[in-house]
Amino acid sequence: MQGEKIIGVVGGVGPFAGLDLQRKILEETTAQRDQDHLAVIAISQPAPIPDRTDYLLGKTAVNPAYPIAQQLFTLERAGATVAAIPCNTAHAAPIFSIIQAELAQRQSQLTLLHMMQEVARFIRAALPNARRIGVLSTTGTYRARVYAAALEPAGLTLLVPDEVQQTTVIHPAIYDPQYGLKACGIATPQARAALLTGFAALRQQGAQAVILGCTEIPLALTETEIDGVPLVDATRVLARALVQWPVIGGR
Amino acid sequence: MQGEKIIGVVGGVGPFAGLDLQRKILEETTAQRDQDHLAVIAISQPAPIPDRTDYLLGKTAVNPAYPIAQQLFTLERAGATVAAIPCNTAHAAPIFSIIQAELAQRQSQLTLLHMMQEVARFIRAALPNARRIGVLSTTGTYRARVYAAALEPAGLTLLVPDEVQQTTVIHPAIYDPQYGLKACGIATPQARAALLTGFAALRQQGAQAVILGCTEIPLALTETEIDGVPLVDATRVLARALVQWPVIGGR
Repeated sequence: MQGEKIIGVVGGVGPFAGLDLQRKILEETTAQRDQDHLAVIAISQPAPIPDRTDYLLGKTAVNPAYPIAQQLFTLERAGATVAAIPCNTAHAAPIFSIIQAELAQRQSQLTLLHMMQEVARFIRAALPNARRIGVLSTTGTYRARVYAAALEPAGLTLLVPDEVQQTTVIHPAIYDPQYGLKACGIATPQARAALLTGFAALRQQGAQAVILGCTEIPLALTETEIDGVPLVDATRVLARALVQWPVIGGR
Repeated sequence: MQGEKIIGVVGGVGPFAGLDLQRKILEETTAQRDQDHLAVIAISQPAPIPDRTDYLLGKTAVNPAYPIAQQLFTLERAGATVAAIPCNTAHAAPIFSIIQAELAQRQSQLTLLHMMQEVARFIRAALPNARRIGVLSTTGTYRARVYAAALEPAGLTLLVPDEVQQTTVIHPAIYDPQYGLKACGIATPQARAALLTGFAALRQQGAQAVILGCTEIPLALTETEIDGVPLVDATRVLARALVQWPVIGGR
């Protein structure tokens, strides 16, 4: 019995990723009828939240941390006790640290999970022999080295695509207005092909597992492994952490 | 520009139907980037809401109207201005009229759309020559004649499966703990086969269109028509009404 636990989701970053997290929360819950499912409140209010990669690259002055924190307060007022932001790029330190500071300043009681810390915990537990870990992500996450900051202290080596492939192949798979996952909400053949190219490059570098490090990517790469290399869906890891929170013994 | 419109969704009835409505809201919105999407707050808190069919059949004394109204108040406090309940059975008069009375008593400013009235409006506009309309639904919706109450005043004749098929084939496609849509969240072959049997029976009665009158059914019947007979996805109709609200000229 989870008692009064209510899961909060900041769902507009992006909107389809918010749905994907909600679906994975349901999938990670053992339920035979409606009433068995956990309480979830999801807010998807994307308009006031600037693009996270744009902010990290200096293309917009407004830190998305502030509207994200506002939406976390809305979730907390509505009853949420544990929350997550299904956007990898929002976990870059220049954004996430401000969200945490805003929560602290308002004396928020909300527990905000950290996506990469959950992924690091998952890899250590589920793939104890994997040392060289690839990651596919937006250019914002790439530049901010969000995964490196979480995984390298655990003795893991992070592998990423080269700069040209990152900016001309991987990032457009997510952001292109015509075939990108954010605009389309489904896996276009072009987006999937681009991401498979990135996967192949990481594998060639020796990746023993590849993190799908943008919440839109699992829309296009739905496999759990390719050619024996496990794909780690960061959204599913986050969903499982929300469902299982609080873990026995606390954190 | 929709200004301060925030869409509220009572998403736990059932949880997968709540996701389906949210997805259709995104699909019915013209958007090329995250920020173009409308604001949506969805609460999925199924535990306190008794099964709607159970209530209508006298198997539980607690009217699901009360917890549903509580969740509408939560949505309104969080900023929602127009809301919907993606559960056909919750629109049965013994439930929906109490929800409306609760909202009125609390002087709620929330506009609560009525699913069947939106479906009736849609059929008149999009299928002006259709007169004989079939409906597939739970047994709760079936007994409460929810669709008849909305469609018959518009001169439409409602067709439903016979009692035996309704209770032994159609309802289990939704509710069976092993293969039902609510437990599985995906279209099992058994559920789809059962619903196609129901569709065939309605077509034999002369249905010129068939309403998918339970929000879980579109998970299994994804076609827009079968053998020339249009399928009316009540969830998609509701999503479009939420996106377009307020319609020009008001209601």
